[in-house]
Amino acid sequence: MSWTLYSAWRATAPYRLRIGLALKGVTYDYAPIDLIAGEQREPAYRAVNPQGLTPALDIGDGHVLTQSLAILEWLEETRPEPAILPKAPLDRAAVRAMALIVACDIHPLNNTRVGRELHKRGVDPEGIKAWSQRWIRDGFDTLEPMIARHGRGFAFGATPTLADCCLIPQVYSAGRFEVDLDPYPAIRAVAERAAEHPAFQAAHPNKQPDAKPL
Amino acid sequence: MSWTLYSAWRATAPYRLRIGLALKGVTYDYAPIDLIAGEQREPAYRAVNPQGLTPALDIGDGHVLTQSLAILEWLEETRPEPAILPKAPLDRAAVRAMALIVACDIHPLNNTRVGRELHKRGVDPEGIKAWSQRWIRDGFDTLEPMIARHGRGFAFGATPTLADCCLIPQVYSAGRFEVDLDPYPAIRAVAERAAEHPAFQAAHPNKQPDAKPL
Repeated sequence: MSWTLYSAWRATAPYRLRIGLALKGVTYDYAPIDLIAGEQREPAYRAVNPQGLTPALDIGDGHVLTQSLAILEWLEETRPEPAILPKAPLDRAAVRAMALIVACDIHPLNNTRVGRELHKRGVDPEGIKAWSQRWIRDGFDTLEPMIARHGRGFAFGATPTLADCCLIPQVYSAGRFEVDLDPYPAIRAVAERAAEHPAFQAAHPNKQPDAKPL
Repeated sequence: MSWTLYSAWRATAPYRLRIGLALKGVTYDYAPIDLIAGEQREPAYRAVNPQGLTPALDIGDGHVLTQSLAILEWLEETRPEPAILPKAPLDRAAVRAMALIVACDIHPLNNTRVGRELHKRGVDPEGIKAWSQRWIRDGFDTLEPMIARHGRGFAFGATPTLADCCLIPQVYSAGRFEVDLDPYPAIRAVAERAAEHPAFQAAHPNKQPDAKPL
């Protein structure tokens, strides 16, 4: 039974999962959800994921997994090789902390539904951009020394981890919000390394079936 | 070597961790951080956690753990009993998804630093309350049927899990933001059950050394 990934090409949460799936060598059917058209709020998608957010991963037998980090942990538990978490508990805690800085402290403040709420409250597009930049910089300010300390090519060590699955999509998003990455040489080095890695290449927004010309 | 928990009595992220520590029977020194006075942004606390957020857990030997969910996963890996994650991977994915709905989709939008940014952009206190209520309701709308399906006393099964560590502090926060919980009977039932459990009682904001009279 093949799996189906419900994804949107530029959204960062499904992008994280695409990286993890590619690292694990898993193939899947790609079901695009058009976030601009609001497909995530339509009954057809709510029947898949009642929360109306991407990603969702249908693995058959009525099992639909949601929440990118929960799915990545499940992938690691069920397909341990290649590992995306180190072995030692303290190292695992460091990798998960980096992933959660992106997933809890940066991304939730910048997604489409939050932009819509700010717009409703009279915040103009420049204000929304400044809002997003603020949270990205805050998070990157914290991540930069962590990566400088733990990274040896990737964010933690020499091979990709859960931290990179979260970081690389957030770097992509930082580009859309025109965040200056000059103050973050360690983050930039990881992004350059990831750009040469086949799993990160395959997961890139521009390579997805629903990619639109920019 | 005793551990030190950097906490703030009403903040929900350290509250999650206090529940987990109490469930595991771990004792610790309590270091209060006054979020209203801005102690989390002072150099003394930045030396502990450069991100300036609570919680942080100092376990000695220069190891300071951050990010509540990363610390809870580390606790589970290093002190497996009593378990706060089920054994089967799909069940673990369901518990983690519930925890992440709180930790990624509700809480980051409602914390102190976000309230300050909204205030700066001219949103008044009523507007900030409505903003917070919106994200809490969105998340609880998703959690309610998941808990109704998986819960048997607690959010997943008959014993407390990572999902309850996140849910119960969020229910407490929902009270502060005056969210009507009538539409959420499954969530209310878990909250009532937790209120009778010694670990949840010990972790309650009102029981902390830095609690203020309301």
